[in-house]
Amino acid sequence: MAERYEICLSGSGGQGLILAGIILAEAAGVYEGKYVAQTQSYGPEARGGASKAEVVISDEEIDYPMATRLDLLLAMNQKSSDSFYFDLKPEGTLVVDSTFVTQTPTTKAVCIPFTEIARKELGREMVANIIALAALATLTKVVSLKSLEAAVLARVPKGTEELNRKALQLGSKAAKAILKERKPESIQGHGPDHDDTAYE
Amino acid sequence: MAERYEICLSGSGGQGLILAGIILAEAAGVYEGKYVAQTQSYGPEARGGASKAEVVISDEEIDYPMATRLDLLLAMNQKSSDSFYFDLKPEGTLVVDSTFVTQTPTTKAVCIPFTEIARKELGREMVANIIALAALATLTKVVSLKSLEAAVLARVPKGTEELNRKALQLGSKAAKAILKERKPESIQGHGPDHDDTAYE
Repeated sequence: MAERYEICLSGSGGQGLILAGIILAEAAGVYEGKYVAQTQSYGPEARGGASKAEVVISDEEIDYPMATRLDLLLAMNQKSSDSFYFDLKPEGTLVVDSTFVTQTPTTKAVCIPFTEIARKELGREMVANIIALAALATLTKVVSLKSLEAAVLARVPKGTEELNRKALQLGSKAAKAILKERKPESIQGHGPDHDDTAYE
Repeated sequence: MAERYEICLSGSGGQGLILAGIILAEAAGVYEGKYVAQTQSYGPEARGGASKAEVVISDEEIDYPMATRLDLLLAMNQKSSDSFYFDLKPEGTLVVDSTFVTQTPTTKAVCIPFTEIARKELGREMVANIIALAALATLTKVVSLKSLEAAVLARVPKGTEELNRKALQLGSKAAKAILKERKPESIQGHGPDHDDTAYE
């Protein structure tokens, strides 16, 4: 695993990105024993509805908790794709919700219609964030799907467990379809191969 | 308002302190237009169940997002009171949940039985975190109760709005009882007087 791996989850307020950041942080920190710092920042522009959660994961103690050069950027709307792409390392991975992001700044971007999948397959757009997390885990192996599922189920409202499990499966499936059609080297890998056969 | 005001919410996992940190950050950042950074950190010890959320509030852009010298510490269990008290400024404010904290490191500590109030008055221990937030706001005026209520209602599960409104009122009431029996100067104030007559 890289010494320090920086992730930014970005989009509109209401897309559940802060919850997604906490879930990802807990998957790595509580369930995989990594050092993790998870931050959100608000400024006077926060009323505008932009939302951004940062997660820094490391094998060592983290001195500076904010992301400075991203390894992985999730952009759930066009504005966040346009704005935060410049924080991505040249070899970093951009994943966009192609429901809302129609113009990507690089042809290397991974485009998955998270919100459309949530709406069509599950009838609930609110789980697009969970579908996206499963896709990020499958693409980059930043956490195992097993840890991610444990963290998701610990944080989502009671009664929505099954919905969220299905969301995880859909996200993983969509990411695997991408991995099949592209050279795996075109997506920056991360960490060891996890045993995620439950999601095959 | 102070240029930089640092808060730590600490206790056991499951006491809702990460949600409380996000609510407090959104009250200040989204509803009051301050600069806010909100962080949680996990290390290999995170399985132990300790939980800590930090909120830094400022009138100016925040360069370093983690708390270094606390103005305000909420400790919801004995261990966090013992551990994090040393991060408090000499003139800082310590607020403890006296349901679980039986030995305070200073006689200046504000002791309120948040969990007992939640259990006895509302039959739901899970809202102890919201009662505590209302008490912090009333004691220190770090955010107005109006902003806090807006942030609470935007984050709690649907159907629990009335429960959470009552929790806010109970926390404010408990803090006012403390303010009546102590010299207000003994508790570090913060920010302007808000018009919180709805909570009288």
